[in-house]
Amino acid sequence: MKVGIIGSGQLGWMMIIEGRKLQNSYYVLDDKPGPAARLADSYIPVSEYKKFVDACDIVTFEFEHVSEQALLYAEKKDKLRPGIDSVSLKRDRAAEKEFLSANGIPVAEYSISDSREDALKSARAFGKAVIKSSRGGYDGKGQFYYNALGKGGKIRLPAGERFVVEEFIDFDFEASVIASRGEDGTKRFHIPSFNRNVGGILFFNEAPFRDYGMRDVASKILDALEYVGVMGVEFFIRGGRCIVNEIAPRVHNTGHHTLHGSSISQFEQHLRTITGLPVPEPLLYKPSGIVNAVGVEITREKEERLMRIPETHSYPYGKGELRRRRKMGHVNVNAHTVRELRERRRRVIEILYGSEPEAYFLP
Amino acid sequence: MKVGIIGSGQLGWMMIIEGRKLQNSYYVLDDKPGPAARLADSYIPVSEYKKFVDACDIVTFEFEHVSEQALLYAEKKDKLRPGIDSVSLKRDRAAEKEFLSANGIPVAEYSISDSREDALKSARAFGKAVIKSSRGGYDGKGQFYYNALGKGGKIRLPAGERFVVEEFIDFDFEASVIASRGEDGTKRFHIPSFNRNVGGILFFNEAPFRDYGMRDVASKILDALEYVGVMGVEFFIRGGRCIVNEIAPRVHNTGHHTLHGSSISQFEQHLRTITGLPVPEPLLYKPSGIVNAVGVEITREKEERLMRIPETHSYPYGKGELRRRRKMGHVNVNAHTVRELRERRRRVIEILYGSEPEAYFLP
Repeated sequence: MKVGIIGSGQLGWMMIIEGRKLQNSYYVLDDKPGPAARLADSYIPVSEYKKFVDACDIVTFEFEHVSEQALLYAEKKDKLRPGIDSVSLKRDRAAEKEFLSANGIPVAEYSISDSREDALKSARAFGKAVIKSSRGGYDGKGQFYYNALGKGGKIRLPAGERFVVEEFIDFDFEASVIASRGEDGTKRFHIPSFNRNVGGILFFNEAPFRDYGMRDVASKILDALEYVGVMGVEFFIRGGRCIVNEIAPRVHNTGHHTLHGSSISQFEQHLRTITGLPVPEPLLYKPSGIVNAVGVEITREKEERLMRIPETHSYPYGKGELRRRRKMGHVNVNAHTVRELRERRRRVIEILYGSEPEAYFLP
Repeated sequence: MKVGIIGSGQLGWMMIIEGRKLQNSYYVLDDKPGPAARLADSYIPVSEYKKFVDACDIVTFEFEHVSEQALLYAEKKDKLRPGIDSVSLKRDRAAEKEFLSANGIPVAEYSISDSREDALKSARAFGKAVIKSSRGGYDGKGQFYYNALGKGGKIRLPAGERFVVEEFIDFDFEASVIASRGEDGTKRFHIPSFNRNVGGILFFNEAPFRDYGMRDVASKILDALEYVGVMGVEFFIRGGRCIVNEIAPRVHNTGHHTLHGSSISQFEQHLRTITGLPVPEPLLYKPSGIVNAVGVEITREKEERLMRIPETHSYPYGKGELRRRRKMGHVNVNAHTVRELRERRRRVIEILYGSEPEAYFLP
């Protein structure tokens, strides 16, 4: 099949690597060529989105913010998987909250505000809150903490936006599940992972992690959307209960550990699902996790040191320019026990960042 | 690094897939573009072998019979890994036998003949024998059985060739080990596999298998050649002892199971080794094996059925033309137990071939 991928970042890059064993060709659409463009059978600039959609049998995306027109046109041609409803939710945090809430999915208390003043008023009412721009946010962008995470009650919100104001959840853990649903309604779940985010960006994760009801909740979301493809669902765990933080209607950073030590990667799972191929229940062979390389290059010297660690694979994304808080790559680690995994992770972090890793993640 | 691969078949194709996470670009040289050419950063026809070698930092090969000139030129430029000595052995069965024998490696009794008449005389003396053309043979090509495998004593040998005449080994099992040696002498071994060959072509294999001293023997061969890269060493096991059948100075069909359920694939192991990156000892996470698709296409309909089997991945090589005895793809299978692996393998074989698989392998 001819599979179109909207966006040419690292998610598309890994999708193509993992998808080479499938009998597909890969077309990539973006406004400038990222890592996936180098591996694609064809790179097409956004201006030619119609040609791109027309050439493909099925269209998916690895980033929601590339081209609204391309998404809409692919949906109109009945080629978009997952469909436009899921993308719209992801691109509109207010709609996402209302959808989840209406479907009985546990979310943080929230209110929606159409002005800065109203947003701040709601935040004051919660005491501690997160104010999120309803549109355009990812990786911690467009998020403002009110009386939480060391921030006070004085924040500058952008003008003319809609906001979602959420009760600040003082969680015990963050966790996620990588789930998929096929056209026929079959749902598949990877074992959940524990995630450590810093400054709104994933620092590291590890699986297995306890379920806390996450797979049931993900299942409800997938069915409610009549979703087709892989979805990443991020949760807060507080007092042994799960609360949905956000959903990602695509392969997700917290699923990269499935590249090694799982029976199927989230990338192959996604491609099989959107092209109508079967996916047996994913198995986790070994404790698995990743460390993100954020704002640091995986140099050859670091690569050599990383590769001395058993069961470790590094994925440098080959993005030219190093920028602060930019995801430049990640490192997969497996181990025989969770204790050993953590020890290896400690070594990976030290090699990538030295002694103060968290400084690289903070805005 | 710029890595050159001589040959553009399925071994190069998988090497590039597995090598995409490494910071290399891949140049492929062949007389016509095979599967690897589609994935390479650049495909170069053999006539331009000098340009190819000059453009690369390191040159390896996935097939020994593409271009003698390219191999020699890469060796001259000190870029060929493994080196020319290993290739020469592979391309000259008489030299291979004499080298192994001189290094105390257990091989079948043999003699070398420079005429058909002399070869037949030697075969008669052994009673049961295999007569092999010294040059150009692979996948059972150029091999003639004398009073063995249902053949009688009347065989037609080609004229004007040199032959290796070997005592026919009535083995208990065939097995192999995938081994590597780095520039610094570090050696790494995958757990050996049991292999079932039919008509000189691999039908299926499975790991783990008992060692029978194979890793020690492989280690001696690697050191004797001052080898750099991955080598596949094939053995006969008879009465609990291992006898080298042949060596392959490259990634090998009996190592494809390392793509799933191992801590590192033979392809990444090879690329890391030839580019001077470390390789920790490979681990086998789960019972693993493959089934070759020989002379049959992995159609979309077969692919769908295969993918319903848990822990199963199919690798169709995308070679245009289906030919008798041609390797068109393979299927990886993992399982929790060896018994379960065999049951799944039985299903894979039935899907690929129906009820008479071995007929597809016989000449």
